[in-house]
Amino acid sequence: MSRLLDNVCSELQRLPGIGRRTAMRLAMHILKMDTEVVDTLSQSIASFRHDIRYCRSCNNLSDGDLCPICSDTRRDSSTICVVEQVQDLMSIENTGQYRGVYHVLGGVISPMQGIGPSDLKIDLLCDKLLAGNIREVIVAISTSVEGETTLFYLLSRLKAFPDVKVTTIARGIGFGDELEYVDELTITHALMNRREVTNVK
Amino acid sequence: MSRLLDNVCSELQRLPGIGRRTAMRLAMHILKMDTEVVDTLSQSIASFRHDIRYCRSCNNLSDGDLCPICSDTRRDSSTICVVEQVQDLMSIENTGQYRGVYHVLGGVISPMQGIGPSDLKIDLLCDKLLAGNIREVIVAISTSVEGETTLFYLLSRLKAFPDVKVTTIARGIGFGDELEYVDELTITHALMNRREVTNVK
Repeated sequence: MSRLLDNVCSELQRLPGIGRRTAMRLAMHILKMDTEVVDTLSQSIASFRHDIRYCRSCNNLSDGDLCPICSDTRRDSSTICVVEQVQDLMSIENTGQYRGVYHVLGGVISPMQGIGPSDLKIDLLCDKLLAGNIREVIVAISTSVEGETTLFYLLSRLKAFPDVKVTTIARGIGFGDELEYVDELTITHALMNRREVTNVK
Repeated sequence: MSRLLDNVCSELQRLPGIGRRTAMRLAMHILKMDTEVVDTLSQSIASFRHDIRYCRSCNNLSDGDLCPICSDTRRDSSTICVVEQVQDLMSIENTGQYRGVYHVLGGVISPMQGIGPSDLKIDLLCDKLLAGNIREVIVAISTSVEGETTLFYLLSRLKAFPDVKVTTIARGIGFGDELEYVDELTITHALMNRREVTNVK
């Protein structure tokens, strides 16, 4: 086998979800792409890794010192939505409904993976709260065991700021989910957090 | 969203089977990789596209003028296995059972995609046959409509070389396939090409 092909295949296999066959398929596709397009692809990977920075305010990925969200003066900087990772921030941004700012923890507390509270950007969040002008912190962390642990730790830290309202996003049945296939814990929560129907005539 | 992240995601989406979410997942993984590893990955993609060559004898991917198979003197150069694409060559190589050489057509005749006989490396194959010393041509092309068309065209060209034995790989029931789920055409072929059992005592 050609050494160049061998190299590109083994390198592509370092990426998650890419095995031997997929790597080969990608390599064959790369061969059919214009040289300039491949150069742009290759350079975008390298420069992403080299030049990306973390927003000094919210730990979001950023090109500069502050991310586009934190530097957007039209956003409500008194409301902070706490998320695990950048992907979660993007999911919320995609709804186009949230006008506050974010805080990216960079993971969840996981003793199994050796991730403790000090590995997360919790101090950075507390510093922001200390500086004042924050009205609400919305915690939008996943409901895994690690997520819940992180939530409880976070709540204990947030007790130091009694003036800040702390909320979590609602747990319930997703739109399009069939009750038949929803797990018991979610149904229990959805029942407990039921809402009175007010707008029916 | 960060421009660097945006760039790398849109570039990754040029690859087959990589959508918005997968691109994001790959980008996040790239972020966790060592800078040197990412550089090697990025460079391997670019240099693969820039420096790869096609073997002048068999059209296989190659680092140099001749591919490792064609330049291997231990291989039987009098037997040529004709395949559509490099991946097929590799599948056969992976069996470790074939000691002949290959000829990569670079596709199949497909009027729908505007691929005619002149787009395939058929002339190169005929040149090799003209040069002599070839005993057998094994045609290992897929059984799609395009593959069969290519096979018939190829056979018509190979008629010019009556001394060369032309064979196709056997069609039949694959090992582990259940007869219940095998298509009728394959079963028909497998029945027609049945073999007498000779080694049962």
